[in-house]
Amino acid sequence: MRFGLTDDQSAIVEALSKLVSGFSDEYWLTKDREGGFPEDFYQCVKEDGWLGIALPEQYGGSGMGVTEAVLMMHTIAKSSGGMAAASSIHMNIFGPKSIAAFGSDDQKQRWLPGLINGDFKMCFGVTEPNVGLDTTRLKVKAERRGAKYIVSGQKIWTSTAQVAEKIMLLARTSPRDDAKPTEGLSLFFTDLDRSSTTIKEIDKMGRKAVDSNEVFFDQMEVPAEDRIGEEGNGFRYILQSLNPERLLIGAEAIGLGQEALNRATAYAKDRVVFERPIGQNQAIQHPLAVNWAELEAAFLMVMKGAWLFDKGKSCGVVANAAKYLSAEAGFDACKQAVASHGGMGYAKEFHVERLLREVMIPYLAPVSQQMALNFIAEKELQLPRSY
Amino acid sequence: MRFGLTDDQSAIVEALSKLVSGFSDEYWLTKDREGGFPEDFYQCVKEDGWLGIALPEQYGGSGMGVTEAVLMMHTIAKSSGGMAAASSIHMNIFGPKSIAAFGSDDQKQRWLPGLINGDFKMCFGVTEPNVGLDTTRLKVKAERRGAKYIVSGQKIWTSTAQVAEKIMLLARTSPRDDAKPTEGLSLFFTDLDRSSTTIKEIDKMGRKAVDSNEVFFDQMEVPAEDRIGEEGNGFRYILQSLNPERLLIGAEAIGLGQEALNRATAYAKDRVVFERPIGQNQAIQHPLAVNWAELEAAFLMVMKGAWLFDKGKSCGVVANAAKYLSAEAGFDACKQAVASHGGMGYAKEFHVERLLREVMIPYLAPVSQQMALNFIAEKELQLPRSY
Amino acid sequence: MRFGLTDDQSAIVEALSKLVSGFSDEYWLTKDREGGFPEDFYQCVKEDGWLGIALPEQYGGSGMGVTEAVLMMHTIAKSSGGMAAASSIHMNIFGPKSIAAFGSDDQKQRWLPGLINGDFKMCFGVTEPNVGLDTTRLKVKAERRGAKYIVSGQKIWTSTAQVAEKIMLLARTSPRDDAKPTEGLSLFFTDLDRSSTTIKEIDKMGRKAVDSNEVFFDQMEVPAEDRIGEEGNGFRYILQSLNPERLLIGAEAIGLGQEALNRATAYAKDRVVFERPIGQNQAIQHPLAVNWAELEAAFLMVMKGAWLFDKGKSCGVVANAAKYLSAEAGFDACKQAVASHGGMGYAKEFHVERLLREVMIPYLAPVSQQMALNFIAEKELQLPRSY
Amino acid sequence: MRFGLTDDQSAIVEALSKLVSGFSDEYWLTKDREGGFPEDFYQCVKEDGWLGIALPEQYGGSGMGVTEAVLMMHTIAKSSGGMAAASSIHMNIFGPKSIAAFGSDDQKQRWLPGLINGDFKMCFGVTEPNVGLDTTRLKVKAERRGAKYIVSGQKIWTSTAQVAEKIMLLARTSPRDDAKPTEGLSLFFTDLDRSSTTIKEIDKMGRKAVDSNEVFFDQMEVPAEDRIGEEGNGFRYILQSLNPERLLIGAEAIGLGQEALNRATAYAKDRVVFERPIGQNQAIQHPLAVNWAELEAAFLMVMKGAWLFDKGKSCGVVANAAKYLSAEAGFDACKQAVASHGGMGYAKEFHVERLLREVMIPYLAPVSQQMALNFIAEKELQLPRSY
Repeated sequence: MRFGLTDDQSAIVEALSKLVSGFSDEYWLTKDREGGFPEDFYQCVKEDGWLGIALPEQYGGSGMGVTEAVLMMHTIAKSSGGMAAASSIHMNIFGPKSIAAFGSDDQKQRWLPGLINGDFKMCFGVTEPNVGLDTTRLKVKAERRGAKYIVSGQKIWTSTAQVAEKIMLLARTSPRDDAKPTEGLSLFFTDLDRSSTTIKEIDKMGRKAVDSNEVFFDQMEVPAEDRIGEEGNGFRYILQSLNPERLLIGAEAIGLGQEALNRATAYAKDRVVFERPIGQNQAIQHPLAVNWAELEAAFLMVMKGAWLFDKGKSCGVVANAAKYLSAEAGFDACKQAVASHGGMGYAKEFHVERLLREVMIPYLAPVSQQMALNFIAEKELQLPRSY
Repeated sequence: MRFGLTDDQSAIVEALSKLVSGFSDEYWLTKDREGGFPEDFYQCVKEDGWLGIALPEQYGGSGMGVTEAVLMMHTIAKSSGGMAAASSIHMNIFGPKSIAAFGSDDQKQRWLPGLINGDFKMCFGVTEPNVGLDTTRLKVKAERRGAKYIVSGQKIWTSTAQVAEKIMLLARTSPRDDAKPTEGLSLFFTDLDRSSTTIKEIDKMGRKAVDSNEVFFDQMEVPAEDRIGEEGNGFRYILQSLNPERLLIGAEAIGLGQEALNRATAYAKDRVVFERPIGQNQAIQHPLAVNWAELEAAFLMVMKGAWLFDKGKSCGVVANAAKYLSAEAGFDACKQAVASHGGMGYAKEFHVERLLREVMIPYLAPVSQQMALNFIAEKELQLPRSY
Repeated sequence: MRFGLTDDQSAIVEALSKLVSGFSDEYWLTKDREGGFPEDFYQCVKEDGWLGIALPEQYGGSGMGVTEAVLMMHTIAKSSGGMAAASSIHMNIFGPKSIAAFGSDDQKQRWLPGLINGDFKMCFGVTEPNVGLDTTRLKVKAERRGAKYIVSGQKIWTSTAQVAEKIMLLARTSPRDDAKPTEGLSLFFTDLDRSSTTIKEIDKMGRKAVDSNEVFFDQMEVPAEDRIGEEGNGFRYILQSLNPERLLIGAEAIGLGQEALNRATAYAKDRVVFERPIGQNQAIQHPLAVNWAELEAAFLMVMKGAWLFDKGKSCGVVANAAKYLSAEAGFDACKQAVASHGGMGYAKEFHVERLLREVMIPYLAPVSQQMALNFIAEKELQLPRSY
Repeated sequence: MRFGLTDDQSAIVEALSKLVSGFSDEYWLTKDREGGFPEDFYQCVKEDGWLGIALPEQYGGSGMGVTEAVLMMHTIAKSSGGMAAASSIHMNIFGPKSIAAFGSDDQKQRWLPGLINGDFKMCFGVTEPNVGLDTTRLKVKAERRGAKYIVSGQKIWTSTAQVAEKIMLLARTSPRDDAKPTEGLSLFFTDLDRSSTTIKEIDKMGRKAVDSNEVFFDQMEVPAEDRIGEEGNGFRYILQSLNPERLLIGAEAIGLGQEALNRATAYAKDRVVFERPIGQNQAIQHPLAVNWAELEAAFLMVMKGAWLFDKGKSCGVVANAAKYLSAEAGFDACKQAVASHGGMGYAKEFHVERLLREVMIPYLAPVSQQMALNFIAEKELQLPRSY
């Protein structure tokens, strides 16, 4: 094993650290209070050419791997922007991989340059309200009518649908067959046509800057040439991107946790009570040391998952473990950061409560901690399926 | 030991359960979003005569003990109102005890009826920004000038100062003497004169309905007859109310946790994924069972503390343990409630994220978990002071 | 609620505290190393008349309730003897309740005086190796042959079978009927006939002084008059004693944990490293304070369960919660006691490692922590059965 | 980063996996019951040439790094032999590094071949009873008398002193000077002369096969040529080996935990209760999945520490974090393995209770978890020293 970054990787981290440091606590706090997409931040990321980090060079991307994407998203989340910053670009990093992998040349040409240049934002229409994590039961329908599909039904938790021009959509093109439950779904990348959709923002615990939505499709027309790959194989295409998504979200949880830890540590050094910095108390410093160790270890697991993926090796168990450990470590660090601030941790101006609200996102999504454990239990430990 | 409630106590719980059920999820969610004191709720509590539950009958109160006050606040917090509901009256329940215990007959006559009737609300000016939990280092000064004291300096985390007419104020009347650090502070109950104070609301993680504030005193005049007891003994008077406060806040944390648990349980029964209610999964149901057990056990500790207090026995260790256990159990239950809801736990309309934000209050205040453990370690285990 | 002990109850605790203090660390350490039933200790308990604490006065017992039995076993376990001491008499306290409740007058007359006087010890033959906690699937058979039953099959984890004269045996008298799985088992109290049994001691982690065994029955004859109650109703009779057993074992786990905590606290005061008692470090003292609080709270839950039982109220959920919380708190305290001793915790002469080995008994038995949570989830939270 | 093993490293793991599989559960259980150095096992390791894995090739070693030593010890501990197997050779792997680093050519020639060949075993005399982890306060004295030193005083926790021919000894050669507390200690490697020492085995919780001892030196003579490096610099020499020791012990804790996890998983698949393998229950399988993830992550941290060390980079913080995480993960896995076995976990014949007793060694030594956290807090987080 080798545990150092390459020079290129170090340069990515350095450049992005600098980029994120240009956005102040006040900027992000205002976004958290008032909402509104962090367009200034997005523009910076776009202008510096980061959106195509993991997309093919021939379409203007950097052609790097999930490893570098992980380093990028980790660095962005490890900032005052936290999940708001990360989520504002997360989908553009992770979403187009399906196009690169399964799209036709024509589709890649039509879509990838715009995604890489940041000409359009995309959102991700997979999750549905009454389906939970049982993806094979998705109900949104795309009915073929000549050269078009007609889409109807409801998606939920579609992030950035308020600002996105495009949507990656998984919809049912033939009825569910219990014998082949993973078939019958198709994947589309198409315009998010606001005239035939109703998009309702969900008021949520945190990350107000990046909207999450219910999207109701009312006979939305999708040209057949916007279907990626073969009809009925959409589930399989999406599956390919689940592991990178878990690794990216893991990296974000860790970044968030480290940002919280840094703030807690700084406060613990400065804050004097009973004539000593509170950080001199083991009750304050030991939990922070544990947070540090757990975040570092989880990060190594994320990096291992990315290395496996980039090598073309099987990485599902590691990716799920990375997501699980990262979310636990990130959550614990954010909670501890609030606790280390005492009452001040409850005031928005100290920012750690914001991070605690945001860390629930990688804790709850894109897969629950319980489902991650189910995966490990079944695939690694070979225990029987429990549900 | 005996573990049942008396008929009177059961009646308290029943009546208040009914009262709180009159205020909808939507009412409290709106308060959480928009802020604004929950005046309707307060009026109901006031009209039903609950404010004086633990104050002397001769001034219009019910003359009951901390036990009954605990039952009252537990029931109120175990509702959609959670900490917002509890905090809107908490101070009126717990604050006036110092008047009842140490005030002159004249003072009791002047103040208790109004507090009991709800004619005026009171806030509590003890905590200061650079002092933390080291109360003997309070800096707000009250300088004697003839028949008045002139108050200057800053308090923080003063709840309900936006709406209160009265303030219970702990201020320094003579300089700190290292030899007698607990002396030199005096206790006042007086008008919160807005002309000589600046009151700045703190934007905070939760419980927006009940304001918390920084209060800056700019030569505020306080009549000498508003001083409770002897000059210089204020710390001692306040000390008497610390244990009841910990017990009440513990009861509130438990109520909040139980409300969250009830919501999680209901959701776990209804929500079907993979063709079964999610509550059939041990990964969902076992944490809820643990929450139930820990909340019940913490509640017994709260009740034991209240019983000891009402019997006139030493209750400091039990009160601190009750606060510690209640805050842990309450926090865990609220976090688990969010996790049990999956992604829906992040949406405000499911209410559990609100409870999670609110449970940080009893977690962080009025004393940190670490200080509660210090107290147990020193007083019960007789271990040397660590700080 | 009332949280004090009655004078009688205090007298029980006091007398037993004195009794257990008569047995030295060295006594119990030797028993742990070499095995051998703690006959001296048993004789003291017997001579002071404690064995019949919860059995009817008309047969020589004290006629007290589970509450007093809990106080007794708690006090015994809270000593250097720990589980070895407790287990040496546990069965005589808890086992004969089925006789008192369901035996005929003749049976009571035949058996209770001897159990109360300590003339004979009894063991408990319920658990079987391939059945686990699914009691309705017990396989040991008792076939009726005229005035006798012929018993064959295997029991496991039968404690004190090496020294007991009597056995309480649950055996199948008719085949399992899926429609009525709880029927077909019968309860016997009879001589443990060594000529028709093979009793094989299990080498185990701790509590060497009190043997646990595999018992193989080879056509053991049991007179029909040794059957308690009706044939086929044995499961129902045994069920009645499960909650008291959980409460007693909970009390023992707590006693054990408190004994460990006391030793850890004493060591933390005495042991000086880096020129300070190690107990001055929050990393040492805070976990001990948490142990203290959790043990106290669990004890209140045990006492509540006992109160409910003695009042004739439903106590299953509370008993399971008490067992769960007690085992967790007891385990944590014993582990922390070892950790607080540093390397010395690993040496037998400091006794805490012995307690840690012993606390696994109430952790693992008589019901697993997982089954206790299943019970709470189903009965209290009304969630669907998960298994 | 790169996460694969080299071919050589894979070969090490494979060869040792095969070697350890040659020693049965029964072999190690007997050793655990009866004690006695596992000489057969030691001979195999010696004959296959593993003892010199990390010692210089010029003296017959393999010249590999800590990375390979970590892989070796991890593989050995991940077997039925657990800590007994690991500890029987641990000192020969880790101890002689000080000779290789600081010994003279003559000393290396005199000692390394014998250690590499396994001609003699060595023990480690550093820890003292009243000093704890405050190594600068060691009291064992080595007084210079001409060409010899005369050693007197007491060491404790000296493992393998019953069978070792040699001792690595840290002793005071000049009085402690508060201004330079780390000076005045010298390091010796010399014959363990049984005629001038009393060696008393400590009866301990587990790992009976590998003795731990109190060693009393009664004027033991040590030739001056057995002193390593300069007089007074012994503390500095020893310091160099602390990080490798932490990494090795971390690797052993992980191996032990994984062995326990494997046994728990196998049992969970086989054991049927309520008509299903118990491993189908999430209450059984999820904790095992968590164990798996935490053990893997801790292992990556160990490997990172080894990589840093082998690269000559600073690795103290990582080594302490690796020890901390490994001990936690190893302990949790062993405890869970016992819990997963239900009552059977308490029987020695299922082996997991033995692993639980053994895992306390890396939990408690060579440094406490608390001291590991202190190190991280001070060195990485730059928080003030707490003790």
